[in-house]
Order: sequence, then structure tokens, then C-alpha cells
Amino acid sequence: MNAELIAVGTEILLGQIVNTDAQIISQGLSELGINVYYQTVVGDNPERLKDVILQAKNRADIIITTGGLGPTLDDLTKETLAEAFNKKLVLHEKSLEDIKNFFDKIGKTMTPNNEKQAWLPEGCTVFTNEWGTAPACGFECDGKYVIMLPGPPRECEPIFKKYAMPFLYPLAGGCIKSHNIRMFGIGESAMEIKLHNLMQSMQNPTIAPYAKTSECFVRITAKAETEQEAEEMLEPVVKQVKDIIGDDVYGVDVDSLEQVVGQLLIKNNMTLSVAESCTGGLLSKRITDLAGASAYYMGGVCSYSNDVKMKVLGVKAETLEKYGAVSAQTAEEMAKGVSERLGTDVGVGITGIAGPDGGTTEKPVGLVYISVYIKGKHITRKTNNTNGRDRVRNHAASLALDIIRRELQ
Amino acid sequence: MNAELIAVGTEILLGQIVNTDAQIISQGLSELGINVYYQTVVGDNPERLKDVILQAKNRADIIITTGGLGPTLDDLTKETLAEAFNKKLVLHEKSLEDIKNFFDKIGKTMTPNNEKQAWLPEGCTVFTNEWGTAPACGFECDGKYVIMLPGPPRECEPIFKKYAMPFLYPLAGGCIKSHNIRMFGIGESAMEIKLHNLMQSMQNPTIAPYAKTSECFVRITAKAETEQEAEEMLEPVVKQVKDIIGDDVYGVDVDSLEQVVGQLLIKNNMTLSVAESCTGGLLSKRITDLAGASAYYMGGVCSYSNDVKMKVLGVKAETLEKYGAVSAQTAEEMAKGVSERLGTDVGVGITGIAGPDGGTTEKPVGLVYISVYIKGKHITRKTNNTNGRDRVRNHAASLALDIIRRELQ
Repeated sequence: MNAELIAVGTEILLGQIVNTDAQIISQGLSELGINVYYQTVVGDNPERLKDVILQAKNRADIIITTGGLGPTLDDLTKETLAEAFNKKLVLHEKSLEDIKNFFDKIGKTMTPNNEKQAWLPEGCTVFTNEWGTAPACGFECDGKYVIMLPGPPRECEPIFKKYAMPFLYPLAGGCIKSHNIRMFGIGESAMEIKLHNLMQSMQNPTIAPYAKTSECFVRITAKAETEQEAEEMLEPVVKQVKDIIGDDVYGVDVDSLEQVVGQLLIKNNMTLSVAESCTGGLLSKRITDLAGASAYYMGGVCSYSNDVKMKVLGVKAETLEKYGAVSAQTAEEMAKGVSERLGTDVGVGITGIAGPDGGTTEKPVGLVYISVYIKGKHITRKTNNTNGRDRVRNHAASLALDIIRRELQ
Repeated sequence: MNAELIAVGTEILLGQIVNTDAQIISQGLSELGINVYYQTVVGDNPERLKDVILQAKNRADIIITTGGLGPTLDDLTKETLAEAFNKKLVLHEKSLEDIKNFFDKIGKTMTPNNEKQAWLPEGCTVFTNEWGTAPACGFECDGKYVIMLPGPPRECEPIFKKYAMPFLYPLAGGCIKSHNIRMFGIGESAMEIKLHNLMQSMQNPTIAPYAKTSECFVRITAKAETEQEAEEMLEPVVKQVKDIIGDDVYGVDVDSLEQVVGQLLIKNNMTLSVAESCTGGLLSKRITDLAGASAYYMGGVCSYSNDVKMKVLGVKAETLEKYGAVSAQTAEEMAKGVSERLGTDVGVGITGIAGPDGGTTEKPVGLVYISVYIKGKHITRKTNNTNGRDRVRNHAASLALDIIRRELQ
């Protein structure tokens, strides 16, 4: 089975938006074991849209379109696909009802052109749009499968995952489940080498490696007849991967290091504060990205100048003079200082040179000292990263969280 | 003139990455007045790649490819395009030299397979890749124009802007210049209404409106024979837009509010510190995203708990009790407290309810008080934004910067 994605929208061709729908749908199809051979973007132009659809009908088993389902005259996807597959459009009363209710809910009156959205190809499976007005749908015809999804990503993604993926399960031979195993402290290549034999030996579940800023993860995906069966197939493989990777695994199906650390702090009934120099508030920002962080996070100090390091955190002038602001000693005094002054169980100190300027031969750009003061002792690490200011800062913040995670996990 | 973009890369079809190159190139072509009729993504598969290229040769005047220029065997873009246009690949000595130098610079030895990247279609214009190894190129043949760019966005974008756009200038009838006018404090609709008549009346330069998180901007683009001529056409329009929008314009061709505020602080020889509650370090992070912020930014305090507000910032217990942590009074004491304790000319205090929980009828989610203590006085603003935690936080941080900007500009 192979699929072709067709995005219909002049705004993509003008570069006003990026085609993120294609990524979401491709990921889902990849998990289903359905190959995507082509992604095409075409504008709201009847002739070119028709050409693209006929070409896809000719070369793909599954056609998935995004966009062009709206109420205006230049929304032509349904009309063009119906024509290509010799299908009539018929009014779907339930969808019309849903659209009217949607407008009621936001306190507006439905204008007549919105009815257009409720006309759908005869005999199709309707995918209710709980996130907007245009219903989506799928049908089988001439041995081909067609799915039409709305363009806005906040509608396209949930409809695809909730309705279109299950519609495709029979083609993929059952249902699909995945688990993500997240790691910190191991590089992508090292992870792949460690998992190479296991990955090679597996067909179902499959193991797919991914990398993101200073982290990597694998997604383990099983196909089975039922969800329970898929879950039973996944469980031993998740365990195998965790055993092989070891402590570098920080969580399964979690969002981020900051989330895991937050849960560990709550579980241990501990509080946290941070003192940041080169990360400049980034760690504090990441911790407070999560709603509910106030349960364990008391606050932080960004001590960008030496003066603030001394006055607010109590770093000693001698330490700064003898070892410099970028040193293990300063990081330790920052960590202890912030935990004492803010009265928390755990304190973090980060000091380094984020760059691009300010480096010396002895202390180059990318050098960062990170200290965690916890249970009356210091855990201090030095890191050196040369991938630019943003990555230096992000890596240092992640490393600080990872030290706490390893200590509490 | 119409163009077709072809991205070559299985990783896009698997959904591992999103095709941002297509957006950047489409934006540039739109500025040049070149229509993009199709964007296509195809994998590293020789047959399908050839089909897509021949189809594009048939229906487009300009073909721009991204990806598939690397050193490995499955990098086939050049070979396939050369074949489609009956061109030989020849070794480009200068590019080989560049590739060797690139490896020298990062302290590695060039492996032999990298030489492949220096073989380019005979007679092409070579676009030096200063950001990676694979050189890009452009040529004209059979009345069609072909441009090949590397896939990684950090290489594709600068090469496209520095070399490919000027290569296309003759097709667009001259050269292109743009200026971006950035605004804060005005919504996109209000901006469009104010500029409507001017936008309608202009053909060259054109004025295109854009919106991003809590900001909007317009791009003014002129086509002319020479750069100087374009500049002369732009100047009065930039002035007109600034006059119409007024104080909400915070800069022309600047990157961000934090950059403009940084420059104003340097110019006024002033220093800054911030005290953040609901933004949790985000403002500090944004200020220190910029290298060189240490010239004016001394540091900040994230006072997530009331205890930290009192102990570190000196907010009075009575104030917290009488008015609450989320109040104009608390924001003002935070701003003054941080500026006094950190010894800076300007102090910022931000306190609010970022959500999604923690709101009450009196103080709903999204309510934020922002105070700037500057030249011995407070400028305090209240804002209410219901677009979710991230936007509430970002808007509050931007508003704080904007208050300083208006005071100093």
C-alpha cells in the first residue's frame, strides 16, 4: 500500500504557511507501515488541482488531501475528487446540524455559504470535525482509498489521529500502538549502535530512532488485531530498550526532562530553586512552562553580572577572583547560595560562556559548569558544547535537570 | 514565469522533518513576482525522482530542487537533473578546494566520497556553500532555469537568499529589495484597516502584512533595475507606513523588541533588571538570547513563590495580603525592589495568572500586571489575554519590553 498526500492551498505556495499537516500525516502513515511516495502542494486552481488528483489516482493506492473543504467558492477539493471518482455530493444532515451548533456555541449566526461544507460524497464515512466547521471524510472507490481532511493544523491533526488512522487500520492489517522512550546523556549515533542488533531483528514492533536538541528518543510501534495485543507486544520491547540503554532513559511517554524532574520533586516532597548565569533565565523559563510548577519551584536568580552573584547569591569575591566567574567553584557557591537564600531543598548553579564572543584559550566558548546542591552535597559537572549560543544554553539547562533526575530516580 | 519546487528526501516523506525549505523559497519567489504552481516532495528513489523532474520540466519555467546533493550514493539530484537536461557533470576544482578546507576547519580529514559533491553540471553557475559542504548551482537549458540547493535549512536558506535570488533577478525583471516594519501594540486587523488604502494603491513597491505571536509586521518590497533605485522607491513608502501606524512601530529591519530595547539602553547608558512571577524567567531568557546583553542586563529574579517576593525582592507582606500577589501594587514593589537590590537604572515587575488553572472570577486566567520602574517613577499596565499559557507569558514579556521602548525611544 502506498499513499500520496495532496495539500490544497495557495497560502502554502506563497510561503505564508509551512505544510506541517504533511509531516503529521506522514508520521502516522509511517507508523501504519504505509509508504508515502509523494507529497504534493497545489493551489486553489481547478485545472491544476484536477491534474494532480488524476495523477495521484493513477499512481497511489491511498490519496489523502488537506485543505479546500471550507465554505468559499475557491474551496474545491470535494467537488474535484467527487468528479474524479464519479461520485455525487449529497447533503449530510448531521453535519449541517453540527455546523449550526458550532456557530451557536461561539455566539454567531451561520451564514448560508457554510451549508456547502455539509455536502459530502455519497456513501462516504464522515469524520466529525469537533475542532472546526468543515467535516472530513473517507471513501473507497475503484480500488482506491480517499481521505479528505481540513487544512488548519489544529483541525487536521486531531481528525487524522482520531478518525482517519482507524479508517486506515484495516489496510494496515489491524491497529497500531506506539511508545516513546526518551533519553538524555547519550548521542544519536551511540544510541543507534547500542540498539542496532535489536532494531535489525525486529519487524513488528518496529523501533525508529529520532534526535532533537541535545536529546534523542526511539518510538516503538506495534501492529496487531487489538489494542491489548499491541500493548502485549510492546511491553517486552520497551523493557529490552530500557535495559540496553540503562540510566540514560529518563522516561517513557513523557514530554520533557522538566516534566520528569517536576514529578520526582513532588514525589519526594522537595522544592527547587535555580541560579543562572549564561542560561540567563532559560532553565527557569523551561521549568515554569509547565502549569503547576509552583508546587515545587520557588523561584530563581539570574545572576548575569558578578555583582549580582555576590550581592544576591552570596558568591565570595575571593572565589570570583581566584577561579573566575566561569568555574566549578562559582557554580557550587551559586547553587548553595540560591538554595539557602530561597529556602529550597535543591539548588542549581549554572555559569559558562554561551558565546559567540567572550571565550579565551583557557575558557573557550561553550564551556559551562553546572552544580546541583542537594541533600547537603554538590554534584558538579563540566560541559563543552560548540554548537552555537542556543544549543549551549539549552544543553546546559537540560544537563542541570538530568543531574537532579539521576539523583532522585 | 512560474516555478516548481522539488524537495528530494525520504526523511520528509517519513515525517521526520517538515519541509521548511519550501516555505522560505516560496516566500522569496513571491517577492520576485514568480508564481509557484506546485511543490513536490519525492524520496531518494531514482525512478520516481526522474518522473517528477521530467514532469516539472514539462510544466514549469523554473525548477528549484532542495536536497540530494550530499556525498552518499542515494544523493541523486544532480545526476538525475543533468540527465534530464543532457548535461555532463564535471569536476569543479574550486568547490573541491572549498570542501577540503571545510573539513580542515573542523579538524577532520575529508573522506573520498565527499569529492562527489564537487562534480557539477557543465557550464553552471556555482553557488558557494559557506555553511556546509555541498555546493549549490544554477543553469539555463532548453529555455528552462534550474537551481539546485542543499536540503539542510541552515544551508538552504542563506544560499537561496545570497546566490539564488540574485540569479533569478533577471527573470523577475531586475532586483528586489525589502524592508520589514515591526509593530507592537496594534492587532493585525487594526493594522490592515489603517493601511488598507495605501496597500490597495500600491503595485510596486508592494506591502504585505504578517502576524506573529502578539506582534505584527509589514514587508515592503520594491522591484527595480538597480538596488539604489529600489531603495529610493522604498524610502517614501516606509515613511508613509511609519506615519500612518505611529508609535506602535518599534523598528525597521530589526529582529525583536529585546534587540531594540537593548540598543536603547546602551544608547542611554542605562542598566536593566527584571523580577518575574508568572513569566517565570521567560523575559530574562529572551533578553539574554542576544549575545552582548551583559552590557546592560545585570540579572533578574524569578519570584515564583510569595516568600521569594518578600525575602529577595522586599515586597511587603501587607501588600501581598491587602492586594494579592497578582496586583498592580505587587508588580510595582517587585519592579522597584529588583532595581534597588540589583542596582540598576530600570526594573521590571511582572505578576499574573498564566493558567490554565489558578484563575478566579475577580482575577481570571490571563490577567497580568506589568510595572516598569524607571527614572524614579512607575509605569504600570494591566493586560488580559485568553490565548493560553504560552501566549499569556510571551505577551506579558513583550509588553514589559514595549513599555521601556516607548519611554526611551
